Amino acid sequence: MKIALAQINQTAGKYEENTQKILDFANGAKQQNVDLIIFPEFAVCGGYCNDLFNNKDFIISGFKSAELITSQTPIYTICGVIANDKLNQNITNAVALFHNDNMKVIASKYNLNDSLFNDLKYFKFSGFSNVFKIFDKNMACVIADGTESVIKNIEKASWLGIDICVILSCSPYYKGKIEELKTVIANCAKENAIDVAYVNMLGAQDGYVFEGLSLYIDKNGNIKVQGETFKEGLTIFDSDAENVENKVNDKNKELYDALVLGLKDYMTKNNFKKCALGISGGIDSALTLAIAVDAIGAQNVLGVLMPSKYTSQESNSCALELCKNLNVQTKTIPIEKIYNVYIDELTPFFENKQKDLTEENLQARIRSNILMALSNKFGYFILCTGNKSEDAVGYSTLYGDATGGYAPISDLLKKEVYELSKYRNTLSKVIPDFIIQRAPTAELRENQKDSDSIPEYDILDDILEKIFDNNMKYSDIINTGVSNEVLDRIWKLVCSSEYKRRQSPLGTKVSKTAFLRDVNLPVGNGYVWKPMKEKSLPSGTEKE
Amino acid sequence: MKIALAQINQTAGKYEENTQKILDFANGAKQQNVDLIIFPEFAVCGGYCNDLFNNKDFIISGFKSAELITSQTPIYTICGVIANDKLNQNITNAVALFHNDNMKVIASKYNLNDSLFNDLKYFKFSGFSNVFKIFDKNMACVIADGTESVIKNIEKASWLGIDICVILSCSPYYKGKIEELKTVIANCAKENAIDVAYVNMLGAQDGYVFEGLSLYIDKNGNIKVQGETFKEGLTIFDSDAENVENKVNDKNKELYDALVLGLKDYMTKNNFKKCALGISGGIDSALTLAIAVDAIGAQNVLGVLMPSKYTSQESNSCALELCKNLNVQTKTIPIEKIYNVYIDELTPFFENKQKDLTEENLQARIRSNILMALSNKFGYFILCTGNKSEDAVGYSTLYGDATGGYAPISDLLKKEVYELSKYRNTLSKVIPDFIIQRAPTAELRENQKDSDSIPEYDILDDILEKIFDNNMKYSDIINTGVSNEVLDRIWKLVCSSEYKRRQSPLGTKVSKTAFLRDVNLPVGNGYVWKPMKEKSLPSGTEKE
Repeated sequence: MKIALAQINQTAGKYEENTQKILDFANGAKQQNVDLIIFPEFAVCGGYCNDLFNNKDFIISGFKSAELITSQTPIYTICGVIANDKLNQNITNAVALFHNDNMKVIASKYNLNDSLFNDLKYFKFSGFSNVFKIFDKNMACVIADGTESVIKNIEKASWLGIDICVILSCSPYYKGKIEELKTVIANCAKENAIDVAYVNMLGAQDGYVFEGLSLYIDKNGNIKVQGETFKEGLTIFDSDAENVENKVNDKNKELYDALVLGLKDYMTKNNFKKCALGISGGIDSALTLAIAVDAIGAQNVLGVLMPSKYTSQESNSCALELCKNLNVQTKTIPIEKIYNVYIDELTPFFENKQKDLTEENLQARIRSNILMALSNKFGYFILCTGNKSEDAVGYSTLYGDATGGYAPISDLLKKEVYELSKYRNTLSKVIPDFIIQRAPTAELRENQKDSDSIPEYDILDDILEKIFDNNMKYSDIINTGVSNEVLDRIWKLVCSSEYKRRQSPLGTKVSKTAFLRDVNLPVGNGYVWKPMKEKSLPSGTEKE
Repeated sequence: MKIALAQINQTAGKYEENTQKILDFANGAKQQNVDLIIFPEFAVCGGYCNDLFNNKDFIISGFKSAELITSQTPIYTICGVIANDKLNQNITNAVALFHNDNMKVIASKYNLNDSLFNDLKYFKFSGFSNVFKIFDKNMACVIADGTESVIKNIEKASWLGIDICVILSCSPYYKGKIEELKTVIANCAKENAIDVAYVNMLGAQDGYVFEGLSLYIDKNGNIKVQGETFKEGLTIFDSDAENVENKVNDKNKELYDALVLGLKDYMTKNNFKKCALGISGGIDSALTLAIAVDAIGAQNVLGVLMPSKYTSQESNSCALELCKNLNVQTKTIPIEKIYNVYIDELTPFFENKQKDLTEENLQARIRSNILMALSNKFGYFILCTGNKSEDAVGYSTLYGDATGGYAPISDLLKKEVYELSKYRNTLSKVIPDFIIQRAPTAELRENQKDSDSIPEYDILDDILEKIFDNNMKYSDIINTGVSNEVLDRIWKLVCSSEYKRRQSPLGTKVSKTAFLRDVNLPVGNGYVWKPMKEKSLPSGTEKE
């Protein structure tokens, strides 16, 4: 049987275009003699529709789209749809098989996942997969997200005595996901002795990137075919052919591609044509600029230099060199005069208090005002250049550098910013060495270094990973050589800057521990983190 | 039996203080010859701990607190705790009965609610309520939030053949909740012929207000006792006495009290002593100021007037009169000179473009910068004065008036802002009549009125309620006399300003449809809302 896995980039709620694209893909596949085409979960409505699912007209629009696919698709088509449950009382996140002017709902999502997309708020489970037959193959179809759910669903489907388990997904990318998922599916296919076809959504929506992974793994655990990720198109193959494919993923390429697609789709799906950002001569704005250029083209990007008296000559020249290397137009708008008038006007109210953070933050806020003025006047979409290490400890100015429509690298630790900058330079040398080598500085006062205010980034990043990625206990972190003082300080900063993160621009999630998505702290909490001995109170019984 | 219902205001994660307060309350009750004291869900850890529940040391700290209560409480004590499940594999949101140096887990939360507090992310259900006996009474205890969950739990508990069902809750306030809940519980108590004791958490955390409702309703559906809401203390009564109480709630008082507590707790729990806000002479800043004064005292509030050339004489004098009426200190910092320098510096880059929104937004952003400078210099907590009607359609300046540490009235429709302002004036006349009577204006250009940019607020509020509170279909809204053009425009504005709401300060939730809490739209979506005929596709069967 000739199968096409459809890597399709759909937009949330854009029914007409989404439906047309499904039909175009199906017709394209038909021309290549494909028997069966498989689209991902939510293929009709698009990913991340959230409360649109509460809108009754929205749901009915989805039904109409499904009718159109029913009457027009030229081949066997498996596709994620929204359907009514058997009693017509609830809606269900479902899979339909379209063929020969018929639509049959063949499965509804079983592991409703609430941590990510609020499945439970909108959908009810309505029956596990039915077995269906295409030519001589017995097949079942499931919807799964996350490795755990993939394992459970394959196992459950294997009890149905099938040849092929088809998995539809709309699950977001995170670092290392592709290798992880390939291994998990290969093991599952082998253990359960069934072929597995996997199709994930492609594209980005609200900062979630769907990498569009398409896979077919046979019952021996061999990868028969793997589509190219982060790219629209059909992955076509013969399920009975003997080929074995094993693409090795380049970790940095994968991550960089995710960031580029994240920004590109956010801008295009929200109808922004051009963007602007402040270029400081530092590494964060350098990498952000490179991503912007790769996402929407240098001709659509503006680099804005906003020097003050604290801006070094090197910063200015590096910033200009970077923009030149990337063919990006620049404007230079000094902030000195504006800053001076603020100080003149505010000094009478400052009651002879010393210079402090106030004056530093003011500079960052003036820069934000200038960028927003350019945005309002010319329609530039403003990029925020903040990274995850800074966000974690609140090392940014609220309404200052922490502003913008989108923050492309906000889920990258500082060390990853360096790593990806170096990776980007291997494609073409665009980021000057000096930017990669200099000590990080905000240049908001004389001779300022980031390490005056927060721990060195290598220490900070290490501790952040221990707290969030590894979920380690206090005493275990201390046992790795971290001092109590530094750990207490970082934890306090992380907790006290939650309010700032809540007002930050959306960014691209690329980790399993993205703030506000995976890691949700209370804005206010009175918890003092202390070392505690492992201990468990017996439950449901009297205390001994 | 003499029972005390504890209206207790706990702070998330503040174990030592929370535990001490529980013991203080229990000792206070003992002195009044109380036999049994009942604390709400999460009484030990405090409400809204979110990902702190993922921290192992945090959980163990909770166990230690429970040990302390075990050894020290002098009377029968029912209290919300975190416990291990029976196999010690998961943690569970549970209830413990403490007595005579014993702790017994008597229930774990059954209806794990994920839409609100991510229950499912942290907790597993571990067995429904056990029946326990205190003196001659057979009792069972459940954790419930929301009326639906209350009904289900009372019903289920009634099968256990008990005399009294105890309900612990940590569920946030919304308009009308108190009356709704009283009616629901009274009906349930009567139908199932059991007494019901209900104790909700008190206090505010991250913008959720817990009104602290305490109720005892007998098996005939009579309210025996109702504690005073929004206030700490013990509600003590004899469960065998014959008294009947029926407090009628004043809708406006209830709502106003919720807003005051929401701000007060946010500030005190986050250690802010004093606040500042821009006073424009409009109704939003007037009501916000009154709430601030009632929350933390006039001596801790600063009113900042920041007039421009567009600010009318009336606005200035009203603003001053308002502050005088409330005994609030003011500072007047004109923005003209700062604005002029921005324009001088930016004009060369504006390419002879006409004046537009850019210049208006700039004024709002300068005001925000000034407030933030005062905040940085003196530690003022800045209040945002935006309301829900504006937020819904994005009628605010990002990084301008839409800034601050907290937005006390962000979940009030404009009509409710008026209503509550009038209510506040019945307590003491503080808001000048002119402020209540004038047409709303942002005063960012000559003769500007809000209605130049958005529909009149009565139309806007009506449509917002139809869309979100009543979840009406497009055609049903049109049938109430709304024009397609206006509905399309508002829907478009609502969708396109989601990005702005995501960067807004936290505010107090008082409705069932608070943005970002109850109503979650994708930032980007391509859905065009159209009238659709009711229709349901048969599911799981071939198309006819």
